[in-house]
Amino acid sequence: PHVPYSAMRYPEETMVERSKEFYRLLNQRRTVRSISPEPVPREVIDNVILTAGKCTAPSGAHTEPWTFVVVSDPEMKHQIRQIVEEEEEVNYRQRMGDKWVKDLAKLRTNWIKDYLDVAPYLILIFKQTYGILPNNKKKTHYYNEISVSIASGILLAALQNVGLVTVTSTPLNCGPQLRLLLKRPANEKLLMLLPVGYPAPDATVPELERKPLEDIVVHI
Amino acid sequence: PHVPYSAMRYPEETMVERSKEFYRLLNQRRTVRSISPEPVPREVIDNVILTAGKCTAPSGAHTEPWTFVVVSDPEMKHQIRQIVEEEEEVNYRQRMGDKWVKDLAKLRTNWIKDYLDVAPYLILIFKQTYGILPNNKKKTHYYNEISVSIASGILLAALQNVGLVTVTSTPLNCGPQLRLLLKRPANEKLLMLLPVGYPAPDATVPELERKPLEDIVVHI
Ligand SMILES: Cc1cc2nc3c(=O)[nH]c(=O)nc-3n(C[C@H](O)[C@H](O)[C@H](O)COP(=O)(O)O)c2cc1C
Ligand SMILES: Cc1cc2nc3c(=O)[nH]c(=O)nc-3n(C[C@H](O)[C@H](O)[C@H](O)COP(=O)(O)O)c2cc1C
Repeated sequence: PHVPYSAMRYPEETMVERSKEFYRLLNQRRTVRSISPEPVPREVIDNVILTAGKCTAPSGAHTEPWTFVVVSDPEMKHQIRQIVEEEEEVNYRQRMGDKWVKDLAKLRTNWIKDYLDVAPYLILIFKQTYGILPNNKKKTHYYNEISVSIASGILLAALQNVGLVTVTSTPLNCGPQLRLLLKRPANEKLLMLLPVGYPAPDATVPELERKPLEDIVVHI
Repeated sequence: PHVPYSAMRYPEETMVERSKEFYRLLNQRRTVRSISPEPVPREVIDNVILTAGKCTAPSGAHTEPWTFVVVSDPEMKHQIRQIVEEEEEVNYRQRMGDKWVKDLAKLRTNWIKDYLDVAPYLILIFKQTYGILPNNKKKTHYYNEISVSIASGILLAALQNVGLVTVTSTPLNCGPQLRLLLKRPANEKLLMLLPVGYPAPDATVPELERKPLEDIVVHI
């Protein structure tokens, strides 16, 4: 059944004001690679995940092809760190070649990931490449990677809205090991690993140049 | 050079309140397939795109691999509609098979897309599959599709924040024709087409069931 849709309708000046305010909020988002160990209220994390995964993100043919695994157990965080660092070291030293390493040098990232131990929460976002129907047949998940990435974008906005930071990361080659460690089923593939917390008091970020607006928007 | 990062730090109760409020806002988001022809202030659209594309979304190795084409010209919108409907009809009638059509039946979508003429703006989001360096060599865009989808998620949140609606869509097989129509270079591929406007006064949406929270979140 279809139901009427009614939306908030704001006066035009309010719309302009709200659009500016949201831009100001999101414009402060940065990838912060030094995360504070201070605890973060669990309720905030729950609401952030609700915002991304329940009711709010669209998904191709309404498949909701995502699972959010929230890790706060120190031992489990440490095991995740070991898997990621081991693979990342190989990525940096062998797999990716000088070009990738050079592209990343200006961000000062390497294979040491303290934040995987230190951040109070690690959110691992899995995409479900297919679903399982009640009759055990596979259900196609159209556009699952795009859908889950959209939901992740909403999650990043929700984190920024409460003053938390993260490192958006797609750990190369660690997916299968992390899936087994976290006991996720075979239809799930790791898409993103987000350490979440307050920024460390001494956190710094690379000063990046951004493309000018005219390089990213075209009006017709 | 690296610079200090300082973030808004909210008291815990404020964080909880803000996380709830943002959830309430995004929880009202729906895909609305009846869009009103009423004009929308251009400044709002500009700020929404700024929020998604300039300074705010993360991108793999900071490549900013996106182009937002904003179409308001009625003739151009109509040409886009013709290309999309032609391809969609073939998708529905031949390419996708009964299963896809059945999966979509409950959403009541078909190949007729009035909203492509009616919506005051169409935002076409292109991913840049590679970049061009000053010396004309190709620059790898790591994870470009994921990065652009994340930016699109932030864009959807920004639209919801001002009371506008859209149809998140990934038009199948129309990419090459739309790229040529909009004169985009060969390194850009269409990822999403978003008609944007106010909901029509009589808009309805399918009543969808959502997965229970315990199906999408796991705590460890
Ligand atoms: C990647 C992606 C592609 C989509 N493609 C279409 C589309 O081509 N046509 C359409 O009507 N809806 C499309 N949708 C919207 C979904 O059908 C919709 O999000 C889903 O049914 C859930 O409904 P809701 O967005 O109202 O919560 C798409 C959504 C996503 C995330
Ligand atoms: C898909 C994706 C993958 C990323 N992977 C990593 C990563 O593995 N390690 C890391 O430190 N940063 C990673 N980043 C963060 C980018 O380097 C960062 O967003 C970019 O340099 C721009 O900086 P900003 O987020 O502070 O604006 C990733 C970002 C995206 C969108």
